[in-house]
Amino acid sequence: MEHFENTVTSRRIHEGRIINLREDTVMTPSGRTALREIVEHKGAVAIVPVLDDGRVVMVRQFRKPAEDALLEIPAGGLEAGEDPADCARRELREECGLNAGRMEPLFSMYLAPGYSTELLHVFLAEELTPTETHLDEDENVEVETLDLPLLLQMIDDGGIRDAKTIAGLLALYRRQK
Amino acid sequence: MEHFENTVTSRRIHEGRIINLREDTVMTPSGRTALREIVEHKGAVAIVPVLDDGRVVMVRQFRKPAEDALLEIPAGGLEAGEDPADCARRELREECGLNAGRMEPLFSMYLAPGYSTELLHVFLAEELTPTETHLDEDENVEVETLDLPLLLQMIDDGGIRDAKTIAGLLALYRRQK
Repeated sequence: MEHFENTVTSRRIHEGRIINLREDTVMTPSGRTALREIVEHKGAVAIVPVLDDGRVVMVRQFRKPAEDALLEIPAGGLEAGEDPADCARRELREECGLNAGRMEPLFSMYLAPGYSTELLHVFLAEELTPTETHLDEDENVEVETLDLPLLLQMIDDGGIRDAKTIAGLLALYRRQK
Repeated sequence: MEHFENTVTSRRIHEGRIINLREDTVMTPSGRTALREIVEHKGAVAIVPVLDDGRVVMVRQFRKPAEDALLEIPAGGLEAGEDPADCARRELREECGLNAGRMEPLFSMYLAPGYSTELLHVFLAEELTPTETHLDEDENVEVETLDLPLLLQMIDDGGIRDAKTIAGLLALYRRQK
C-alpha cells in the first residue's frame, strides 16, 4: 500500500503563541481528497526525574483545557533550534530546581498524530542535585515527590491522567524490572 | 496554592471537522492575565487488542501531521453521546475486523493538556474473534500483528513513535509481569 498523502492546498487559519492551525486538502492513497486539520507545534520535552532514593519528582499544574490541576512529569516546549537534551535540563532546573548528572533519552512520541505535529522527547534524569528555580511568570507549578509504586497506583485509579506521564512512569517501571 | 484559572474572555477561532480552536484570556492564580490557546476535541478511545497467543494487533496508517505512516494501537474518535467502551468495540471491528469478548478499561489520559481538551480512554481487549471490517472511506489502515517483546524493542529503537501506543503497550507489559 502507498501510504503518502500529498498536499493539494493548504489554508492558514491561526498563528498563535504556542500553536498554529492550518487546514490541508490532501489526496489520499485511494485517490480521494480529504481535509486534514493540523495543529502546528514546535515540539517539547518531558523528564522522568528519579532521586537517588528512587522517588520521582512530579509537578502539579492547572491545565485550562482539562479545567483541572494535573499531576505530571516535568515538561516544556522546545525553543527555536534548541537541542532536546538541553531543553530537558533547562526545564528540570526551571520547574523543579534540579540539575541532572545523567540525562538519558527514553523515546520520542507524537502526542496526537491525528491532528498535531507535536513530537515530545522523553528523558530519564538521574544523579539529581538542587539548584535554583526560575519559573516563567505565568506558570504556577507545585513540586511533589512520590514513590513509583504509589504513582503506578494513581495511574490505575485515575489520579494520573496525562499521556506523557503515564508513558514515562511505565517506562521507568519497565527499566527497574 | 489556588490552582484554578478563571476565564475572562473567550474568542472562537475555528469550528472544524475533528477539532475547534478558541483562545481564552484567563486570570492566573497569581493574579496575572494570560492567553490560553485551546483545541477542542470530542475525546477518543484506543484499544490494546491481545490475541489468545499473546500477539498484539496493531494498525499502520499515514498521519499527515507526522508526514509518515505510524504503527499504532487501534483508535478512533467518540461520537456524540457514545459510551467509550462501545466506541472501543466499534473501532476494533471497523479497523481490525475483530470482536472482543472482554473489553477492560486501563486508564484515561489527556494527550496534550497544555492546549487540547482531548481525553483518550485506553482499553485492553481480549477473547478476540474475527468479524467484518468497515473502514471509513478516507481511512487507509494496514493491520499488523506482532509479539510484545518485538513491540517493546520498537519503542526503544524509535520504530514506534505514538504516545497512546507507547502507554498502552507498556501497560500491557506491566500487567503481564
